Amino acid sequence: VKLANLYSISLYPTSTGKNWGYGSANPFKNNCLILDLSLMNTISNYDDTLGYVTIEPGVTQQDLYEFLKNTSFKMDPTGSAPSTSVLANSIERGFGIGFLNNHFENISNLSVVLANGEIIKTGFGHYGDSKNKDVYKYGIGPHLDGLFSQSNMGIVTSATLYLAPKFEQTNLVVAQFDSHDLFEDVLDLLQKLRMHEVIRSPINVFYRKRLLSVKQRFPFERTSLSYLSEELAKELGREHSVTQWSISTSLFGTKEQVKASFKEIKKQFKLLGIKVHSFSEQDIEKFSNASFFTKFFVKKSMKLDLDQLSLVLKRGIDIFLGVPSNVSMRSPYWRSKTLYHEDNPNPAIDNCGLYWISPVIPLKGEFAKKAFSIGEDVCRKYGFDFAPTYTLGGPRFIDNTIPLMYNKDDKEETQRAYLCYRQLIQEFKQAGFMIYRSGITAMDLVIDKKDPFWKFTKTIKKAIDKKSIIAPGKYG
Amino acid sequence: VKLANLYSISLYPTSTGKNWGYGSANPFKNNCLILDLSLMNTISNYDDTLGYVTIEPGVTQQDLYEFLKNTSFKMDPTGSAPSTSVLANSIERGFGIGFLNNHFENISNLSVVLANGEIIKTGFGHYGDSKNKDVYKYGIGPHLDGLFSQSNMGIVTSATLYLAPKFEQTNLVVAQFDSHDLFEDVLDLLQKLRMHEVIRSPINVFYRKRLLSVKQRFPFERTSLSYLSEELAKELGREHSVTQWSISTSLFGTKEQVKASFKEIKKQFKLLGIKVHSFSEQDIEKFSNASFFTKFFVKKSMKLDLDQLSLVLKRGIDIFLGVPSNVSMRSPYWRSKTLYHEDNPNPAIDNCGLYWISPVIPLKGEFAKKAFSIGEDVCRKYGFDFAPTYTLGGPRFIDNTIPLMYNKDDKEETQRAYLCYRQLIQEFKQAGFMIYRSGITAMDLVIDKKDPFWKFTKTIKKAIDKKSIIAPGKYG
Repeated sequence: VKLANLYSISLYPTSTGKNWGYGSANPFKNNCLILDLSLMNTISNYDDTLGYVTIEPGVTQQDLYEFLKNTSFKMDPTGSAPSTSVLANSIERGFGIGFLNNHFENISNLSVVLANGEIIKTGFGHYGDSKNKDVYKYGIGPHLDGLFSQSNMGIVTSATLYLAPKFEQTNLVVAQFDSHDLFEDVLDLLQKLRMHEVIRSPINVFYRKRLLSVKQRFPFERTSLSYLSEELAKELGREHSVTQWSISTSLFGTKEQVKASFKEIKKQFKLLGIKVHSFSEQDIEKFSNASFFTKFFVKKSMKLDLDQLSLVLKRGIDIFLGVPSNVSMRSPYWRSKTLYHEDNPNPAIDNCGLYWISPVIPLKGEFAKKAFSIGEDVCRKYGFDFAPTYTLGGPRFIDNTIPLMYNKDDKEETQRAYLCYRQLIQEFKQAGFMIYRSGITAMDLVIDKKDPFWKFTKTIKKAIDKKSIIAPGKYG
Repeated sequence: VKLANLYSISLYPTSTGKNWGYGSANPFKNNCLILDLSLMNTISNYDDTLGYVTIEPGVTQQDLYEFLKNTSFKMDPTGSAPSTSVLANSIERGFGIGFLNNHFENISNLSVVLANGEIIKTGFGHYGDSKNKDVYKYGIGPHLDGLFSQSNMGIVTSATLYLAPKFEQTNLVVAQFDSHDLFEDVLDLLQKLRMHEVIRSPINVFYRKRLLSVKQRFPFERTSLSYLSEELAKELGREHSVTQWSISTSLFGTKEQVKASFKEIKKQFKLLGIKVHSFSEQDIEKFSNASFFTKFFVKKSMKLDLDQLSLVLKRGIDIFLGVPSNVSMRSPYWRSKTLYHEDNPNPAIDNCGLYWISPVIPLKGEFAKKAFSIGEDVCRKYGFDFAPTYTLGGPRFIDNTIPLMYNKDDKEETQRAYLCYRQLIQEFKQAGFMIYRSGITAMDLVIDKKDPFWKFTKTIKKAIDKKSIIAPGKYG
């Protein structure tokens, strides 16, 4: 960094460079040197009582999973591949699927290389022999971690990461419903259950097309359209046992706590006429035993087949148990020339066309419904599949993630996807549902240079990085 | 603020000016104009589903409590008086007693007046018709809220505050133990219960002298010492039914959830030979009925009397139900000339001698024991009562709050208290237990001008407030 300063060269730091759908390893502006931090991959300082570990940018989900395998704690996987960076996801304020779902809230004690080459430590990290730097985020005085998240203010080279305990019991809770009319009511009910702490994990509500995109490739042979018609989506849904909407979450704690929470969930869902199922690890293990499976499901008259089970249940609970997986990595290949391969998929290398659009929606059914219409209308206009997930990231908001999947080998489709991507962001913004994270080609839709907020961040940037050494154009 | 700039006058913003024990309304440096924000006391924008409200600096705990009385949500009181500011406590990163205990983590969407008079909005607040500004803290781009907490970077004039729902059931959970040998084991057990989410509220572990200080005045007539001898403390303990250590926390959720959690707590505490009691609101209401009381406690052979009950139980559960109270306000008057008065106590006006010392300790029994020794040794050396509370602010750290109570009308004692205060902070710091918050007379123990962290904050301060208009010396 000091040399870059000397020669006025801009640096674009990446961790594993796999920010797929948001620009991968590409800088926001041209003429940057890529600063590849992937070899900084040390895991250290694990505490088996207090549940934390120190990680560097190159530590992948897989690395961390393996490190924690025989400990009392687990990691909180994202929906992305095991080969992606844990720290980069946290700094970009990404979300995970388990109990510690807001990843930025679970890092602290950052080491940050400033543009002038100096290193600062946040929280209590800068008090020499501090014993409390790994357990309390805020330290004393201004709390600076936020300034280094989604920004170009410094290069984060290590952090303390909080872990989740391996609970006595972890259950996967799933439900399906086929009526779009219920969507609003279901979200309102889930909000109530989450607010009252009956459910404490994030809750995913998947639209059919989203689940189809992780199950197969776009059926080019069955349609001349560039997206699934409603009929074809239904047909594929029947083949994969995927209803219009699927819900997935987890319960954890002591056996009695899990039981008590599920009782309330079941009772509330019954009022909507929706059957909810709760499976422990042990239950799911037994599903390999066909006789148990038949007995269980005939009894409960569930409409899933074994294939669906292995996806929704086994992989479903695994992610809550802290096992990262490629379960969602098929979707970037939806319309790609290159076929999906389970072994270390990499949509950037494979030239998959993927944009992520992620508006934040207040957690009320009416808002979710409005956001759904916007997404569906824009995608239909441009001829793409609308395949959203609505994730309850707490009791107040939905982290709505929408993958825009296109064939990057097709120039016309690529241009169409770009326009669709930008219109989606603009329409969500106009409706008041600003995205929480931006790709490299939408930054101009995020930043308003006249807004005092952005003027203020510019003043800070100028004061600490006069030559614009670090990641110019990245959120400021 | 613009005028202050024009005439180069420094401003020291206060909300209600009741930062007792940390400097009250006094600026960190001389020659400041006090900017009193107490008349900015609007509560607005309440959402009865998503549980938030917009508050200004002058809104007191009492104001908010009354506002929320007939709603589905409650506030999270601090241990301080109902007349204190909610927003100021959050911005100073203070702690509450209920489920939302870290108050800084429950504000967002700040309006901040900068030193140049411009106003910025954080989170999604600066996107015009944003619908999500009250439900998601981080917005997009650098997250600035931390920069305005414990700092002099701007004047926060309003914020969204998250509220806790009124749960189906809330129980007060209490226990007592009289052996100091158990202290370490109890903290280790509580850590495990908190980490595994059996308990989800903050847990207070009170030392006897702490509870005595909220029950009576220092017994000047019974000792010539300036602190309670161990014998006298025990004697007073017997009179007030206070054992050496008391534990207090809450359980909430559905009836079944509360029952399931308490079952585990009881089981675990039995292994330490400690009896734990769990009381619902309904249980506690019945205690006014003497026959129920006798029956209940004779049966459970609890060693509390009715007086203790009314304090620990009624006031105890009230605070978890979102009712702020003066329950702890007697302690600043412990050695004060002015007697405590229930009606709007104000230790600053009444010239009470009070310093708060608040080190953060990793949540392990061994560390807590070490911190206890440090505190006791230093207080004994200077002749003051050591009256700590150990609050589990999550599964990883203890927010250890120590009131240093002295007679401010006595010059020698005042000087002695000042030295004791500074030595406590220094010794905690040396042991690695830095304080999380500083009073006006300890800032030099917090800031090291050569530390890159403090150099960095100074660079920012200089860039945004060249004339040092806002709160010079406050955390930088």
